[in-house]
Amino acid sequence: MIRHPDFVTRNAHLDPDAKAITCEGRTLTWAEVERRGRNLAAALHGLGVGPGDRVAYLGLNSLEIMECQLAVPRIGAIHAPVNWRLALPEKTACLEDCTPVVLVADAPHLEEARALRAACPSIREVIATGLAPAPADMSSWERLAATPAALSPAEFDALASADEDVAALFYTSGTTGRPKGVMLTHQNFLSNSLAVGLIGEQRPRLNQLVIGPLFHLASGSRTMVSAMFRIHSVVMAKFDVPDLLRIIEAERIQVFTAVPTMLAMMLDHPDFASADLSSLEMITYGASPMPPPLMERVMKAAPGVRFMQAYGMTEASPTLSVLAPAHHVPGSPWFGKLGSVGLPVATVDLRIADPDGNPLPQGETGEILARGPQIMKGYWNQPEATARALEGGFYHTGDAGWLDADGFLHIAGRTREMIISGGENVYPIETENALLQHPCVAQCAVLGLPDATWGERVHAVVALVPGADASEAELIAHCRTLVAGYKTPRSITIRREELPLSATSKIDKIALRRELLAELERAAT
Amino acid sequence: MIRHPDFVTRNAHLDPDAKAITCEGRTLTWAEVERRGRNLAAALHGLGVGPGDRVAYLGLNSLEIMECQLAVPRIGAIHAPVNWRLALPEKTACLEDCTPVVLVADAPHLEEARALRAACPSIREVIATGLAPAPADMSSWERLAATPAALSPAEFDALASADEDVAALFYTSGTTGRPKGVMLTHQNFLSNSLAVGLIGEQRPRLNQLVIGPLFHLASGSRTMVSAMFRIHSVVMAKFDVPDLLRIIEAERIQVFTAVPTMLAMMLDHPDFASADLSSLEMITYGASPMPPPLMERVMKAAPGVRFMQAYGMTEASPTLSVLAPAHHVPGSPWFGKLGSVGLPVATVDLRIADPDGNPLPQGETGEILARGPQIMKGYWNQPEATARALEGGFYHTGDAGWLDADGFLHIAGRTREMIISGGENVYPIETENALLQHPCVAQCAVLGLPDATWGERVHAVVALVPGADASEAELIAHCRTLVAGYKTPRSITIRREELPLSATSKIDKIALRRELLAELERAAT
Repeated sequence: MIRHPDFVTRNAHLDPDAKAITCEGRTLTWAEVERRGRNLAAALHGLGVGPGDRVAYLGLNSLEIMECQLAVPRIGAIHAPVNWRLALPEKTACLEDCTPVVLVADAPHLEEARALRAACPSIREVIATGLAPAPADMSSWERLAATPAALSPAEFDALASADEDVAALFYTSGTTGRPKGVMLTHQNFLSNSLAVGLIGEQRPRLNQLVIGPLFHLASGSRTMVSAMFRIHSVVMAKFDVPDLLRIIEAERIQVFTAVPTMLAMMLDHPDFASADLSSLEMITYGASPMPPPLMERVMKAAPGVRFMQAYGMTEASPTLSVLAPAHHVPGSPWFGKLGSVGLPVATVDLRIADPDGNPLPQGETGEILARGPQIMKGYWNQPEATARALEGGFYHTGDAGWLDADGFLHIAGRTREMIISGGENVYPIETENALLQHPCVAQCAVLGLPDATWGERVHAVVALVPGADASEAELIAHCRTLVAGYKTPRSITIRREELPLSATSKIDKIALRRELLAELERAAT
Repeated sequence: MIRHPDFVTRNAHLDPDAKAITCEGRTLTWAEVERRGRNLAAALHGLGVGPGDRVAYLGLNSLEIMECQLAVPRIGAIHAPVNWRLALPEKTACLEDCTPVVLVADAPHLEEARALRAACPSIREVIATGLAPAPADMSSWERLAATPAALSPAEFDALASADEDVAALFYTSGTTGRPKGVMLTHQNFLSNSLAVGLIGEQRPRLNQLVIGPLFHLASGSRTMVSAMFRIHSVVMAKFDVPDLLRIIEAERIQVFTAVPTMLAMMLDHPDFASADLSSLEMITYGASPMPPPLMERVMKAAPGVRFMQAYGMTEASPTLSVLAPAHHVPGSPWFGKLGSVGLPVATVDLRIADPDGNPLPQGETGEILARGPQIMKGYWNQPEATARALEGGFYHTGDAGWLDADGFLHIAGRTREMIISGGENVYPIETENALLQHPCVAQCAVLGLPDATWGERVHAVVALVPGADASEAELIAHCRTLVAGYKTPRSITIRREELPLSATSKIDKIALRRELLAELERAAT
């Protein structure tokens, strides 16, 4: 009944000449996003994309990835962005999973796009973005955007998806190592945008900077919030501190979202002291825990700026709880809540449960479960994983937490072993599988160790095959060819003896972690 | 996936002993609303109420009408409150339309409940609310609330309605005179509560006063907002200024919603000057236009209080646009927008359209159309009226309006002839039908005239049958037996000659209104 393209249409009607998206010097107004969106959607339809079909996107942040996300549901199709940081075999696995009809790719990824087209027979056409002419074997995004739509308004209406239809697939790595496409509906996005946008005091014509990658929902959800609240998005192609500071000045940025690691890099940069940040009104942070000393530094460095913390995950589209600006005001009764991830948003029904899913009393720690209109429809093509994740009608986050007497949520760790490094989720099993493909590796265990810059860093403990030999550098280089850089171990402990086993004959990661932390402590003193 | 009873369950989990509902000295905590709600829902199920069945409620504002609204969806049933101000034939028409299985009635309406049971064979049981023992031919609400639920959690889960299912029927009078049951889904309520609650800065444990009748959506929607935001509702059985002032003091009321007429009565009352209103934080107003001099008086009389205006209608569940607290701050750039009804809420896609439904450019006046997750599912049992109201996928409000360059909505009158008197909608045809049943009335026309207290008052122009005679008082008394008091004319112009006709041979109301306004002006000078 109302979908993101409808917000674009409304914005084009209310405020046609206002800026909608800016990236690297180019700006589109809402009227342009509307006109180009209709043209692009009609062109995709002409290329064979029908309702429910996937359009994959492979590229850095740009005008076009936002346009694509907003245009694709006009014909009832599904936006499926691919993480460009993945290694080629991982990208191939994503596309084999979602079997897109069209792949959109930017200039740095055209070679990979050809390889993916060769590997995935579902892909009928590759569309190249950017202002340069497209290669002969591809269509041009710009040319399609400029060609008047061949569909009438009534035809668009007949094709457009419904509230409960999937609008996008955002991929997360699973504990099994197989990529999982999280199916998010229009209603999911609508509920999340409304809840988060209103708590975050969003308003028309605000200048927001999009820093994080738009294939990830922390930023990808901002596309939806922007359309709903008629916000101007300035998109950074790639994160870089001097660029960030320059753009905040030049575009008079008022709000942005960042992971704590980015804020630390910003504060540590020599350009920070001289940057003009006077336009800034609010910074939202999340995706990994904020160390209290960093929070203190940020608040001191940006006086007058309001802060908001969001906690969530792709499956919750993404926000489950918010520590609102009011909770960040020094001297207020809420200031003591900075260690929490805030209050569950109004539309989320949140439970703390024991391993059997029974609710636990206030104050007790258990797995965080949630239901409500923001929870995903399920995992693409994975009914069993979906049933497990949504068992009993609640999404099982895998995070452990507890609620204090005021209802604030506190995170107490993870019930699964996921590592969060620089805001990216790393599931140890993927890195372990990569290491085990090396002929010299007999056993391995991957875990997160505390790291001042990355929050956690990926560390591996490896037992070599008796008689074999491999250096740390060699094993790291081996992993790099199989998994994304952020999943590759930053450090490896190589052992000759077997790894310790738990009572159930699995590698005892708890014992290993204890040993490693003790070593780190000794090294520090 | 998340419905209002789920919010009750969550609140009972997070804050069991916090106050949920207070009325006439009795208070229920969230734990009690949860426990009683499960018991009541199970009892209704035992009385034969199944998913999709209606439970009608006839009574003044009370604890029980709120409990009923929150409990009924636990078994997938539909809450159908009846306007107690209607005449008995009108009430009968509503119940004949929605064919409830159970009728809940309060003490003042038990006789009427018997008459309705006799007239409506669908009613299997009448439940009497209140602490007094129920009559022998009825069940007791209190006894059912105290009897442990005979349904297991799994049985409740199986019965509960889905997001897109109808949660409530709220009746409005139609232009045809036949009552229309507006079907509102959980998603409708969820979207409206989220949008309005967050703009209105609602928060847990706030003390809100519910003044207006809970069978009307202006107040009925507050039940949903309260559950979502864990607010304490203090319910007034009936509007009365001294009571209002006393309760604000005694319960430390922080927020309430009122129609402008009520605010005028409050300011005009001799007790106002001495009342302690220091707890008040925000007043929301709506349902009829706010005269600027009244707004000015209210703002002077309640310094430090924030104001919010909501514009909408039952079919929009109900809020289409909001003039936010920030728009009411004297000296702010938005203060000049007080004459508007604010910005469309984020989830509403609003259009101004010509009579054919084509969008008009900004600044031009046309019918206000809206779509989005707040728009009703349709009218109960009236597929043709539904198709007309939702033609082209947009709800046709019947109101005329225009959007200014900043996107604020201005109301320019009504495309239909509805009269708004004291916040109640009166459709002239209903009153005209009542007048025409009097043997002396040959022709009549009912229209709204400006009125200092009521905004508009219902006025009738009557042409008598040649040779017949009837006084104004006699005709008013006649109407009173057929329609609600607020639909009865407050004044009647009796004519011996025929009424003027328009080119299409209908009574020319435009000419009549012109004559009446000219007379009023002469009388005033």
